[in-house]
Amino acid sequence: MAGQEIYQASTTAPVNIAVVKYWGKRDPKLNLPTNSSISVTLSQSDLRTHTTAACSSKFPSEDTLLLNSSPQDTSGARTQACFRELRSLRSALEASDFSLPKISSLPLRIVSENNFPTAAGLASSAAGFAALVRAIADLYQLPASPTELSRIARQGSGSACRSLFGGYVAWQMGTKDDGSDSLAVEVAPASHWPTMRALILVVSAEKKGVSSTSGMQITVATSELFQRRAEVVVPKHMSEMEEAIKAKDFEKFGKVTMMESNSFHSVCSDTFPPIFYLNDVSKAAIRVVEDINKKAGKIIAAYTFDAGPNAVIYYEEENTAAVAGVVKGALEGLDGWQSREIESQDAGNLDARAVQVLKDGVSRVILTQVGEGPISTKDSLLAADGEALKK
Amino acid sequence: MAGQEIYQASTTAPVNIAVVKYWGKRDPKLNLPTNSSISVTLSQSDLRTHTTAACSSKFPSEDTLLLNSSPQDTSGARTQACFRELRSLRSALEASDFSLPKISSLPLRIVSENNFPTAAGLASSAAGFAALVRAIADLYQLPASPTELSRIARQGSGSACRSLFGGYVAWQMGTKDDGSDSLAVEVAPASHWPTMRALILVVSAEKKGVSSTSGMQITVATSELFQRRAEVVVPKHMSEMEEAIKAKDFEKFGKVTMMESNSFHSVCSDTFPPIFYLNDVSKAAIRVVEDINKKAGKIIAAYTFDAGPNAVIYYEEENTAAVAGVVKGALEGLDGWQSREIESQDAGNLDARAVQVLKDGVSRVILTQVGEGPISTKDSLLAADGEALKK
Repeated sequence: MAGQEIYQASTTAPVNIAVVKYWGKRDPKLNLPTNSSISVTLSQSDLRTHTTAACSSKFPSEDTLLLNSSPQDTSGARTQACFRELRSLRSALEASDFSLPKISSLPLRIVSENNFPTAAGLASSAAGFAALVRAIADLYQLPASPTELSRIARQGSGSACRSLFGGYVAWQMGTKDDGSDSLAVEVAPASHWPTMRALILVVSAEKKGVSSTSGMQITVATSELFQRRAEVVVPKHMSEMEEAIKAKDFEKFGKVTMMESNSFHSVCSDTFPPIFYLNDVSKAAIRVVEDINKKAGKIIAAYTFDAGPNAVIYYEEENTAAVAGVVKGALEGLDGWQSREIESQDAGNLDARAVQVLKDGVSRVILTQVGEGPISTKDSLLAADGEALKK
Repeated sequence: MAGQEIYQASTTAPVNIAVVKYWGKRDPKLNLPTNSSISVTLSQSDLRTHTTAACSSKFPSEDTLLLNSSPQDTSGARTQACFRELRSLRSALEASDFSLPKISSLPLRIVSENNFPTAAGLASSAAGFAALVRAIADLYQLPASPTELSRIARQGSGSACRSLFGGYVAWQMGTKDDGSDSLAVEVAPASHWPTMRALILVVSAEKKGVSSTSGMQITVATSELFQRRAEVVVPKHMSEMEEAIKAKDFEKFGKVTMMESNSFHSVCSDTFPPIFYLNDVSKAAIRVVEDINKKAGKIIAAYTFDAGPNAVIYYEEENTAAVAGVVKGALEGLDGWQSREIESQDAGNLDARAVQVLKDGVSRVILTQVGEGPISTKDSLLAADGEALKK
């Protein structure tokens, strides 16, 4: 048995925004998807979860999780699956090397903080579970690779498996019933195509729509177009997207990104009852991207929407003026522009009605770019006594 | 050759609102569809086109068409196709019976009036071409059946072929290249299921979206889900809908109607660039129908949307209070309620936000019901001198 000391490790983990979307589980318990997906990992300078995982015999016997200073329920099957899998790996290590402290059975204390407002409606569960799994793996000093850990993070939140890597990441759906081959792999590191930028228009939704967890299963059960998407459309988009990323071909990347987003939201609206994540503000963002591309004479900006109205607009650094600059010209004054030096451009060629809808409906912007995977840090969220730091 | 007299015939023709949608042409010239469709013909007391077709050697030599007092171009291929086909049938009659006046070669004067505002965005081309074809067929005293005339009207506007019949009407897509088997047939007359009601919420769209004529062909060319809809989903809906109508099974009718509308709008949004006909007001109407059905514990109301934001809500007469009455309770004061005696009901179980969106976005309501096909009338839109009556 270990003594009274506190074992701990800290990490940060990124958000990822899919360009080929995950929607539908073939096994809801194991979070096994009906199709593969691809995402871009976003920079942790702008969006990240910071997590400290600690264990000690002096902690109360229940595992605990504190997120942004508020206690979270850890009894759910998903969190429990992550804890159990990681403990089991540590336990095997301990059994094979008696010099290792026996910490696998100690109570866990997880403390987590996001550097972005949860209210922004950005999928934070991906960064959250990736950070949780990575931090506990580091705490346990597991020799597991990001791909091995992705199998565990996937059970916490499907898309979390992609946040174990930086750059461009594929989640291979796998075929095995036990999910052992449903894993994330790197398509290309951030350094392969470092000029990818993202402009997020945070839309002030009046109300959270259907949760993705329940929504996707209603789609699987009722959409008459879903099977076609999973079996034919997504596999096509997967191979096109991998080619586009490998060739750094933005036009192809952008076209597939937009068609994928459209396809995903189409099977949502084909669900019964229909699920609508895009609202009139989202559609105005689509219109503005179309106008930007029309002016450029080619695809230099690509919209994508997750299970909510926020628009994520990908573009390359060289087109910052023509994309982010023009949007800034239209939406000057919104919170978020100050994070990067972007010069406002004339937005006169954008549809005036769409611009007005965006002015009324976008609450802030986030400027970011492709980034790295989880990063170990010495920066602990625990005080010396093992209690969470008061913020 | 005929003398100086004016030959004429007048008819009224109805609007129809599809419950299995026409979207996609396999032959744009002949208006041959990629899938069959079914519609409900609406009562001409509420929505109709009134058309007088006349011909005379004293008319100027050009065929003319006056719609709501404004001259229309008749040189388009669609109008020309209708004139040509009808003249050809008359010409064959004249050749077989020399006692008939030779009027097939005389200039045509068509005068048409809608009893509903064109601005309402209701598909008026169906009623318009059905009335035009029926009136000319009557003028020419053609022995053609509604189904035979539907082949001609289809060439004017695809959905017009369904307005040659009352009640419940199928447009069989056919398989022949010349379109000779792409025809409308009666599924059931209005008298079979006379209790079908429709409440139309006319949404004040700020701008007309993509026209259906061009929109559907972009869908055919770019949507990756469209083929599945045409080949698998619609055939399933067609047989389910025919069964529902024959059995007067509203729950089945309503479910297929709503899933069909969702499916159609899903392939629109899967188009690249995406086509959005539903706006936030349309979605609020969907929500209200869902709330009405939830309260009833079964499907008593069914929404459907054509290529625009207006909601058409079908319901049975016995549920007038629970459907139209509740919507009236929420949207009291709108123009249109006075056309029927409907008692306002408590709308407290409707989503308050959806009701507010409807209050802000619905400009008027239309109350109507299933109705008859084209009706011959002595009421001419021409004065005794053959000129259009001034309104």
